[in-house]
Amino acid sequence: MAAIITLTTDFGTADAYVAAMKGVILTINPEATIVDICHSIKPQNIFEAAFIISTAYSYFPEGTIHIVIVDPGVGSSRKAIILKTRSAFFLAPDNGVLSYIIAETSSTSVSESLDKDLRLKQQRLGPETTAVAITNPKYWRQPVSTTFHGRDIFAPVAAHLSLGTPLSNFGRKLNQIHVFRIPRPYREACGNITGLIIHIDHFGNLITNIKSTDLPSRQVTISVGTNSIKGVSSFYAQGKGLIALIGSSGYLEVSLVGGSAAEILNARVGDKITINLGSAA
Amino acid sequence: MAAIITLTTDFGTADAYVAAMKGVILTINPEATIVDICHSIKPQNIFEAAFIISTAYSYFPEGTIHIVIVDPGVGSSRKAIILKTRSAFFLAPDNGVLSYIIAETSSTSVSESLDKDLRLKQQRLGPETTAVAITNPKYWRQPVSTTFHGRDIFAPVAAHLSLGTPLSNFGRKLNQIHVFRIPRPYREACGNITGLIIHIDHFGNLITNIKSTDLPSRQVTISVGTNSIKGVSSFYAQGKGLIALIGSSGYLEVSLVGGSAAEILNARVGDKITINLGSAA
Amino acid sequence: MAAIITLTTDFGTADAYVAAMKGVILTINPEATIVDICHSIKPQNIFEAAFIISTAYSYFPEGTIHIVIVDPGVGSSRKAIILKTRSAFFLAPDNGVLSYIIAETSSTSVSESLDKDLRLKQQRLGPETTAVAITNPKYWRQPVSTTFHGRDIFAPVAAHLSLGTPLSNFGRKLNQIHVFRIPRPYREACGNITGLIIHIDHFGNLITNIKSTDLPSRQVTISVGTNSIKGVSSFYAQGKGLIALIGSSGYLEVSLVGGSAAEILNARVGDKITINLGSAA
Repeated sequence: MAAIITLTTDFGTADAYVAAMKGVILTINPEATIVDICHSIKPQNIFEAAFIISTAYSYFPEGTIHIVIVDPGVGSSRKAIILKTRSAFFLAPDNGVLSYIIAETSSTSVSESLDKDLRLKQQRLGPETTAVAITNPKYWRQPVSTTFHGRDIFAPVAAHLSLGTPLSNFGRKLNQIHVFRIPRPYREACGNITGLIIHIDHFGNLITNIKSTDLPSRQVTISVGTNSIKGVSSFYAQGKGLIALIGSSGYLEVSLVGGSAAEILNARVGDKITINLGSAA
Repeated sequence: MAAIITLTTDFGTADAYVAAMKGVILTINPEATIVDICHSIKPQNIFEAAFIISTAYSYFPEGTIHIVIVDPGVGSSRKAIILKTRSAFFLAPDNGVLSYIIAETSSTSVSESLDKDLRLKQQRLGPETTAVAITNPKYWRQPVSTTFHGRDIFAPVAAHLSLGTPLSNFGRKLNQIHVFRIPRPYREACGNITGLIIHIDHFGNLITNIKSTDLPSRQVTISVGTNSIKGVSSFYAQGKGLIALIGSSGYLEVSLVGGSAAEILNARVGDKITINLGSAA
Repeated sequence: MAAIITLTTDFGTADAYVAAMKGVILTINPEATIVDICHSIKPQNIFEAAFIISTAYSYFPEGTIHIVIVDPGVGSSRKAIILKTRSAFFLAPDNGVLSYIIAETSSTSVSESLDKDLRLKQQRLGPETTAVAITNPKYWRQPVSTTFHGRDIFAPVAAHLSLGTPLSNFGRKLNQIHVFRIPRPYREACGNITGLIIHIDHFGNLITNIKSTDLPSRQVTISVGTNSIKGVSSFYAQGKGLIALIGSSGYLEVSLVGGSAAEILNARVGDKITINLGSAA
């Protein structure tokens, strides 16, 4: 039965872990179309996976099934869940990796900085989302290992879901799931907006948590480390050196024309970015 | 509708950029088969992408749609184009990335060295090729970002093309597109042939721009840096140390048996290779 | 015709080599589902490829066609073969890369250490397996290069096989194929079990050749270098620091909770691991 299943993991591509999941899926649903979103999430980096899936899922057809596995707690008592939103299904450990997805439909807590420990809290789900705990072993691959639920639980459950098995067959309904606090920009007393770098992409672009809607105009000064950038450009080829622009996911990003901003600024995820609203006026 | 769409980009695989394009394609044509050619083109390296697609496209079925995106000028006034040849469709920015494809059917200018700046010139198309400028927003994803035309223009246009939408629907016909001068080997006054390294592959093989048809015989001496290699081998396991052979794309390459020629020779794309026709006779 | 073809190679993903194979396959069988198992086998590392395919194939549907190409002898007199087992087809050069697959159905020779030279011997096939030498050029891509049989022989033969062409059409039957001696753990005079690291995965987990069935209990002490680990954990999140556990392929592995065991132990494939059966009792 035609269906799309995507994979986002920290498994890398040097082993057969991803392929084993694909084999399990295709054994159950040979007509599934499997799409790799990313397998180079840094090991155990729940925050990075949560951000990446949030920038990818909306481009897929309605009903797409997204498996997201960064799972340091595999084999422990952490739950495995299916989250159904208006547009898609998400299968993941209940460890915060769906926090950005949840935040789009529920008013979750926010924080001003990046919590390195990613402390989790229970979040009640909004009216448009449903979740179940994956507890029915009928749909699992047997025997279930204690170290690879991606292959033994998530892959077969996703495949059965793609065949039309109702959500309720997989386990009991959950009213809340775990989320971390999403780091959001805030307004300082002096009027500046302070945000932070939440992702550094392949080109070395610094993607911040500041959305275009957070900016009153493009006439601002952006400070990152000891550097400052005047104004927000429209595209990469406009300007030279360091520029700021609104990237393809709607976040403000800092970019070096023809090079890597991350490298020349020695920037890291979690670093602060300040927007001075007045100085470029 | 069954169709093959390939992707060649400098996007890397650590972000969701490639996946977003695939999601957009599958939303429009769920039956498309998407094949990754390469996503590790060095950022903004138009020459490398131009070469890689030229070594890949001919192995795909007639009518395959190839998207090639290395696009430092995204959002600027550079055109987006569809090129139709006898065997395939190519979607790309009009920045020279299709130069090798064009050179196969038109007599384009050549150069003796690798132009680091890749200065472009307009090339009139041969009788067997057609091109259009992608200008009709009807087939684009809205809103169109200024930084990611791969997702917002090229992916949806490729998907509509795969569904049978006529070429002329996407925009006005072009009679010429931009190309860089293809570096070709030349005959020196003394009779030697001088070429250069145009690609270094994953194994460290040095792929030159010298074709088997450029060589009068296999009894030649190949000089690269201070090293010289006598004769052209038939396959990798023949000989020891540095060897020269005709690689799988028809170009002369220098290889180190059991190791990386690039590493021990500290070779780079653009370095010269000289063929002494007489000395091994 | 629907069919699954997998690819395991040392080709990397920076060139168009893998894509060329996919194009050739899809030209012959447009309905084939092609799955990448791994393309980052270290160049010419037959042992690594042999291990990786052995950990992957069993998760795919019956009848899946696995192409395994690590082929330093391409173009020489080494044979190209198809091996048919009860569950799958394997296409590979006859250079030992299917040794682990063969060892599952035949009693092959074993060794106590990792033979760096991978000396090969002929192995008679068991009753449940069939092999042919790929010798019939009718199913090859012409002209056949001397350097890329993956594209010119293995890919088209796999595609024709996926369309139902009988095994015997591709060449003459073989009664034996080449294997290396599989490194197995052994019991020392003092009663300890000594094995070795056969793979280091993306997380830096040290995967040994000791199977859970080799261990009389989980109350053992594992020595690796100058470190010792008491007991075998059930899952990664159980315990801190270095732990030992049975990994997802059934092998004992040494893991660092939240880090890379390979890095802190400076461990390499081939290093010894000793199991002291008594000391944790």
